[in-house]
Amino acid sequence: MFRYSSLPFQQVQINDPFWNERLRVNHEQSLPKQYEMCERTGRFDALKLEWKPGMPNRPHHYWDSDTAKWLEAACYACAIRPDPELRAQIDRVAALFIGAQLSDGYLNAYFTVCDPVRRWKNLKFNHELYCAGHIFEAAVAHHQLTGSRDLLDAACRLADYIDSIFGLGEGKIPGYCGHEEIELALVRLHRATGEKRYLDLAAYFINQRGQKPLWFELETQHLPQDFLPLDQPPAYFQAHVPVREQKEVVGHAVRAMYLYCGMADVARETADPTLLHACETLWKDMEACKVYVTGGIGSTWYGETFTTPYDLPNERAYCETCASVSLIFWAHRMLQHSGERKYADMIERALYNGALSGMSLDGRKFFYQNPLLSFGHHHRSDWFECSCCPSNLSRLLGTLGSYLFSETADELRVHLHIGASASFTLGGRTQGALRQEGSTPWGGAVRCELELPSPLEFTLAIRVPEWAGKVNALRINGDLQPAEIRDGYLRLSRVWQGGDAVELEFPVETRRIVSHAKLAGNAGQIALARGPFVYCIEDHDFEGSVLDVGLPAGQELTESRESLVPEGESLLVLAGRGVMSARSDQEPLYQPATAVHREETPFKAIPYFAWDNRTPGAMRVWIPETGQA
Amino acid sequence: MFRYSSLPFQQVQINDPFWNERLRVNHEQSLPKQYEMCERTGRFDALKLEWKPGMPNRPHHYWDSDTAKWLEAACYACAIRPDPELRAQIDRVAALFIGAQLSDGYLNAYFTVCDPVRRWKNLKFNHELYCAGHIFEAAVAHHQLTGSRDLLDAACRLADYIDSIFGLGEGKIPGYCGHEEIELALVRLHRATGEKRYLDLAAYFINQRGQKPLWFELETQHLPQDFLPLDQPPAYFQAHVPVREQKEVVGHAVRAMYLYCGMADVARETADPTLLHACETLWKDMEACKVYVTGGIGSTWYGETFTTPYDLPNERAYCETCASVSLIFWAHRMLQHSGERKYADMIERALYNGALSGMSLDGRKFFYQNPLLSFGHHHRSDWFECSCCPSNLSRLLGTLGSYLFSETADELRVHLHIGASASFTLGGRTQGALRQEGSTPWGGAVRCELELPSPLEFTLAIRVPEWAGKVNALRINGDLQPAEIRDGYLRLSRVWQGGDAVELEFPVETRRIVSHAKLAGNAGQIALARGPFVYCIEDHDFEGSVLDVGLPAGQELTESRESLVPEGESLLVLAGRGVMSARSDQEPLYQPATAVHREETPFKAIPYFAWDNRTPGAMRVWIPETGQA
Repeated sequence: MFRYSSLPFQQVQINDPFWNERLRVNHEQSLPKQYEMCERTGRFDALKLEWKPGMPNRPHHYWDSDTAKWLEAACYACAIRPDPELRAQIDRVAALFIGAQLSDGYLNAYFTVCDPVRRWKNLKFNHELYCAGHIFEAAVAHHQLTGSRDLLDAACRLADYIDSIFGLGEGKIPGYCGHEEIELALVRLHRATGEKRYLDLAAYFINQRGQKPLWFELETQHLPQDFLPLDQPPAYFQAHVPVREQKEVVGHAVRAMYLYCGMADVARETADPTLLHACETLWKDMEACKVYVTGGIGSTWYGETFTTPYDLPNERAYCETCASVSLIFWAHRMLQHSGERKYADMIERALYNGALSGMSLDGRKFFYQNPLLSFGHHHRSDWFECSCCPSNLSRLLGTLGSYLFSETADELRVHLHIGASASFTLGGRTQGALRQEGSTPWGGAVRCELELPSPLEFTLAIRVPEWAGKVNALRINGDLQPAEIRDGYLRLSRVWQGGDAVELEFPVETRRIVSHAKLAGNAGQIALARGPFVYCIEDHDFEGSVLDVGLPAGQELTESRESLVPEGESLLVLAGRGVMSARSDQEPLYQPATAVHREETPFKAIPYFAWDNRTPGAMRVWIPETGQA
Repeated sequence: MFRYSSLPFQQVQINDPFWNERLRVNHEQSLPKQYEMCERTGRFDALKLEWKPGMPNRPHHYWDSDTAKWLEAACYACAIRPDPELRAQIDRVAALFIGAQLSDGYLNAYFTVCDPVRRWKNLKFNHELYCAGHIFEAAVAHHQLTGSRDLLDAACRLADYIDSIFGLGEGKIPGYCGHEEIELALVRLHRATGEKRYLDLAAYFINQRGQKPLWFELETQHLPQDFLPLDQPPAYFQAHVPVREQKEVVGHAVRAMYLYCGMADVARETADPTLLHACETLWKDMEACKVYVTGGIGSTWYGETFTTPYDLPNERAYCETCASVSLIFWAHRMLQHSGERKYADMIERALYNGALSGMSLDGRKFFYQNPLLSFGHHHRSDWFECSCCPSNLSRLLGTLGSYLFSETADELRVHLHIGASASFTLGGRTQGALRQEGSTPWGGAVRCELELPSPLEFTLAIRVPEWAGKVNALRINGDLQPAEIRDGYLRLSRVWQGGDAVELEFPVETRRIVSHAKLAGNAGQIALARGPFVYCIEDHDFEGSVLDVGLPAGQELTESRESLVPEGESLLVLAGRGVMSARSDQEPLYQPATAVHREETPFKAIPYFAWDNRTPGAMRVWIPETGQA
């Protein structure tokens, strides 16, 4: 069923003018900043199990996931660029986790120290299994980096213990976690250890979800009331019906994405077409009417949830950084099934926009929410009470290499045009390497050169992004070739020789994007995009507020490279002439159009991901398309 | 503090080409339809207290409010147009209420029959005091219509009983209702009976609201869990802080309006400036950023609540009919304080648009929600499970006369330009009458003629609506006069003679309205308005979907009268040339603007209140302002 395997990031060396800097910042700034914040807030100390009432920094029930995700992200960064200082921190945190495990295998600092009687009592809200999942992921990453089994063994003890508690057998709890994650993590643990029970347990958690009688309802009957200030309906947890009957993406966006990742993983490992089909149905729903142009998902602060079709408000957009990151996780899994371009298009959209915006250019401040419109009061923070996003983005950046290439026994598929060298196997042992370079993301030139010890017959398939739509010119070893695109990929089948080079050029033009007619809050407005980037306008670049700015239909925009911050990398900005609608300071909610005076204004747009790095102010992605001033 | 008294509807005979028909439809169609639905659903039978488990039509805890509101509305209709058949129904329902009262004074069919142990146990959600309030209002209306004290006495027994249960005294429940209403109703009962304890109890309910420890939290501790599938935070009930500390309109919109009505009433009766000031602060917040151009309020289906400033999505707008109706109730009370035009402007906006849309042109179908955008699946219903809206609108229509005029000892103020004759007193006995006639709402001519037995010195103040902004011509007894507008009213002070006539003409032009820059979902879009009416466009009038329609800047629109339905009254419609953006059936969520082909299309707009009376289809109020096709 799943035809493709992605080349793991350990086989892929990224060397790309745009991404080198983002990865450097992640390694040198974001991970140290996150470590510092975990330290300062007591998250690491919590694992010492020494907290007592009256002491500062009372642990929280999801803290273990914050520290585990930092550990996992740090392992990835250390794997692509060895770093003794970071490695020492990794060893320390891994040891803290190992030391926090109880003799029965249980591992959760909060419940061990603060609330032992509640262990497994409130699966709906208490994140215990979610935290366990992140510990499994960290353990696999740690094992892959270090070769040590210490943390992996602890993870297995925890998984074995959980396996003894949960399931449909006599005396077991027939429940599952309110926040999915353990499902995909158990599959990873299964892959790392070969232990089939972990896969079975992942399948159990997925299959049991939404079965009647609903566990969350049974569980609630025995709970004291104090946990229920604001309950949520079963759909919030994707537990309203069994997963194979779910047709629409619903509820908490990150929970949904993690569930769908787990479903895809179990579908792959067990060759279950019903689970895969459910994923495809859910994908179509999301893609048709529930995702922002930035690859953000989650339309409302209320529960951080999906809402109704075409309900994609820009200012109230939740678009949690974790949601775009986990959308990429899911899309990546789906892409390995069919190799369909739509999944790679979505990865690219979310990666360059809604996910990347989660981190400041200097890597030291983070967004939790990524709205498409701000009145000027939304800014990145050092940290959050619920600080899931920073380390999730760092995990993504650390494994970026995994998203570029896939292979089958006779095909090597290039999904993202990010400069990199990768060794590939075509399903066996290493057969050769491919080096991709070019001018993306700002330009359209891409060059793929093969390194092969001996001639080899296979298909090289290169994605033509939806935003490009075509290839201006295709050359193989300098000879112009017709560019036939099938299902969004150039498919070049031949006996390849070492040194063979494919060169191609995508048209990269500034595009005006319009929304579906039902996305009525964007009616009459356009978004600017160029290559993989969505653009926005910020107060910093205007005299007056961007809330008053329109862009005339037909207005040409010029392109130039510019550093937005001192010593920052240069980005491509768009400039031209816009329209400013001058309004009074005491602007009423509604007034006659005749009260608004329009005049021409210099116009400038920057990539969305780079907003809120300069003077704080308003920002918007969707811009009214006006007549001339 | 409250300078003005409105002329009660019993003194005002409406005779207006537009409103005569609406009132006829209410009397002849809506009230009989609501009676029939109350009968069919068992709402009247519930008052017989004969329901037993296993029988159909199990009562609901808010049913008494549906029947009481019908009774109240029917009394108003019968007062302005005697009707023996309706009167017989009134007598029957009044008798049912009287018969449903228990010996201790308690009156609530649901709790008496279905759930007696829960009496007063869940004030937060159970609407018992809310229902009592509607019984008080019905009883006052019934007494005013019939002169009988039967139902009024029953209401007093209920109020006395409630007074013995609630309050801060020893052994009393220090609580208040989750759904406000009893506060304003107790003030009405106080005014009708002169009993000061009812005013004191109203003041208690208002003053206690939001005091710590919060009653809703104390109460919840002793409740079984089964009522809590979806709890709500205290702000939902306007109980987050004491009412005088509330600065922003929050929570359930109808609850909020009823509370603010009660606050204004108690402020008036007790001359309490702190309560009035709180109302003024709340008004400013609502007016500045939380009301739709139709006078609708409540931005989200989730809890039918207010949300954040400038969050006014059009398709997800809740805009419950009851919310616009109760906004009018509140605005009317505030208007009597200062006579400020802004309150009359809001009454007019909500009356002609967001409230009136709650009823079909034939008066037999009703909207609960009144969105400003529909994809074509929102239609009026015969009835609702929670059927608060139909009778609330009928109550408003029955008392429409009360909203037209106010008086002080030396001033008669004309707020709404609806044809009517009214006797006025200037604070004493009847001094004379005023007859208003003219071409409004479709035209701008207004004529006010005085009927006075002897010359009388006073000020006649005539509102110049905000939408008019000025008076084209003012004539007194045929002589052209300068029109001086002060605070939105023409103030004409003189010794008036019988037969004196004031004629004036407002400019009535089609207006294009723009939203505040922060109402970004309307950016680049305009709403059409003319006189008091907001307009909309409906699929019925277009080839293609109105979701694809734009209106070029500068496009002239012509006006004509037209009946939208057979035998319906003629309304003024707007026509011109619009732009249709042709899109594919399988329209993606986002696509290049170049994929959309624009062409000219005939354009037609109708008054918003009259939508969904023809072929079902999409509707929108806010329309993109485009360049020419």
